[in-house]
Amino acid sequence: MLRQTMGSALLATLLATCPAFAQDAGNEAWLPSLMTQTPQEGFDLAVTIARKAVTTTQPNTDALHALRPAYAHDPDSLIEVSGVVATYFATIAEANEYWWE
Amino acid sequence: MLRQTMGSALLATLLATCPAFAQDAGNEAWLPSLMTQTPQEGFDLAVTIARKAVTTTQPNTDALHALRPAYAHDPDSLIEVSGVVATYFATIAEANEYWWE
Amino acid sequence: MLRQTMGSALLATLLATCPAFAQDAGNEAWLPSLMTQTPQEGFDLAVTIARKAVTTTQPNTDALHALRPAYAHDPDSLIEVSGVVATYFATIAEANEYWWE
Amino acid sequence: MLRQTMGSALLATLLATCPAFAQDAGNEAWLPSLMTQTPQEGFDLAVTIARKAVTTTQPNTDALHALRPAYAHDPDSLIEVSGVVATYFATIAEANEYWWE
Amino acid sequence: MLRQTMGSALLATLLATCPAFAQDAGNEAWLPSLMTQTPQEGFDLAVTIARKAVTTTQPNTDALHALRPAYAHDPDSLIEVSGVVATYFATIAEANEYWWE
Amino acid sequence: MLRQTMGSALLATLLATCPAFAQDAGNEAWLPSLMTQTPQEGFDLAVTIARKAVTTTQPNTDALHALRPAYAHDPDSLIEVSGVVATYFATIAEANEYWWE
Repeated sequence: MLRQTMGSALLATLLATCPAFAQDAGNEAWLPSLMTQTPQEGFDLAVTIARKAVTTTQPNTDALHALRPAYAHDPDSLIEVSGVVATYFATIAEANEYWWE
Repeated sequence: MLRQTMGSALLATLLATCPAFAQDAGNEAWLPSLMTQTPQEGFDLAVTIARKAVTTTQPNTDALHALRPAYAHDPDSLIEVSGVVATYFATIAEANEYWWE
Repeated sequence: MLRQTMGSALLATLLATCPAFAQDAGNEAWLPSLMTQTPQEGFDLAVTIARKAVTTTQPNTDALHALRPAYAHDPDSLIEVSGVVATYFATIAEANEYWWE
Repeated sequence: MLRQTMGSALLATLLATCPAFAQDAGNEAWLPSLMTQTPQEGFDLAVTIARKAVTTTQPNTDALHALRPAYAHDPDSLIEVSGVVATYFATIAEANEYWWE
Repeated sequence: MLRQTMGSALLATLLATCPAFAQDAGNEAWLPSLMTQTPQEGFDLAVTIARKAVTTTQPNTDALHALRPAYAHDPDSLIEVSGVVATYFATIAEANEYWWE
Repeated sequence: MLRQTMGSALLATLLATCPAFAQDAGNEAWLPSLMTQTPQEGFDLAVTIARKAVTTTQPNTDALHALRPAYAHDPDSLIEVSGVVATYFATIAEANEYWWE
């Protein structure tokens, strides 16, 4: 249960920095394009898509927020999230032709 | 067992938002094309294919729904799902040439 | 042990829908081409190759079938399988040039 | 420990079907080319490379064989192996230009 | 809890070698380009991005540093980190056209 | 703890076959190029990079060597390592244009 508590903190942190997510219940245009001005914006977009996949699977906001214990953290989950972002970033980078001139 | 209970909720959620899935027992055309109008529709298609892989492996609807406990959630499973969707999204994005003009 | 029991069910399910697999002991041509008519057939082929990797590693049919408990299921394993299929699907999609005209 | 026992069986199975591996201690040419005649041979090569990575990391044959309990099996490990083979297969398929004419 | 303690050490080590990270709270340009002079610099950049994904998800520096026990280490986490870096490195290598002439 | 002990053996084995690694503390050129003469040398380079990611994250040699118990082994960790090597190998293979003539 300890592990679950930790992972929950991660998820809550993900949402805390992106409070509007639970509201956009699927009808809004949240991903009109993969184009960004810089690699850094591309990285931010990768984080956004990774988060969206989580809220699409579990759209219940209360359920998501209930998962937040204040003091727990799971390094392994953080590493896993980094891996997921890496996959989305690869796609975005190719879409932007690696931001070459 | 706790972990299994949580993962089950995820799976049930996946199915709850896609109730028709268990019926299309393999004969129907559910993936005629990888082409979509926007990246967002491409993302939705990625979620659909990820779900299909689950129902193909476990086609028994009752078995899948029996896995749903009402209050459990597993952040790690949600992260993993996001990773699987990321892989399908990469393929769909390339198929659509990243929705360039 | 609970987890192992669940994963076993998955594996058994994989085989149940593909009983001939254990017999084709490596000499038959089971993968003459990566070409398919539609993305859907490409997806089915991805599932087939993912299964083949399992039977290649554990070719003993009795061993595989002994892993089947009737009532157990593991959502996490189902998600993992979806991820493996996603990787094979990416290769098949590229081989078929994404089924463009 | 149960899980470890199971995974060990997998590893032993990997080696059982490839007894010569521990002997080719790094000096022999075991991977002169990625080219194969068919997708199926490409798949077999992917399995070979996946195995080689294991024996490179743990070159002690006795250590590897000691890991073999006769009756244990781990479905999750089998799924993971399938995922690793999938990644090598992707590279081999691209090297062979997907075995197009 | 042992496992969590170990993973924490890893995370702390990641941060220890990159103390400025917690300060750049999202507004600074930390990824202006994917271009590097050599593969080795590309590898270092891959490590940097992998770390950034961790601090983006958990921006609380104290929380991250509190995860550091002095004597613990988790080989599995180290392997996972290597896998995440591998994915970012693949993108950077392609962006740099593999550092061909 | 058993699992940790096993993984440690793996890590120690990794280092045992590459004792110089802990010394090259980041300033030396250890990856001047991704080019190799053969696929096999490309595979060896993939193993080298995978190891480097581990030592970069945990640069303390004593800490790494302290992780070595003489008799333990973890098949799952070995499989995971193979997966990481597979990702680096994919990049190296593309850099070398698959060693075509």
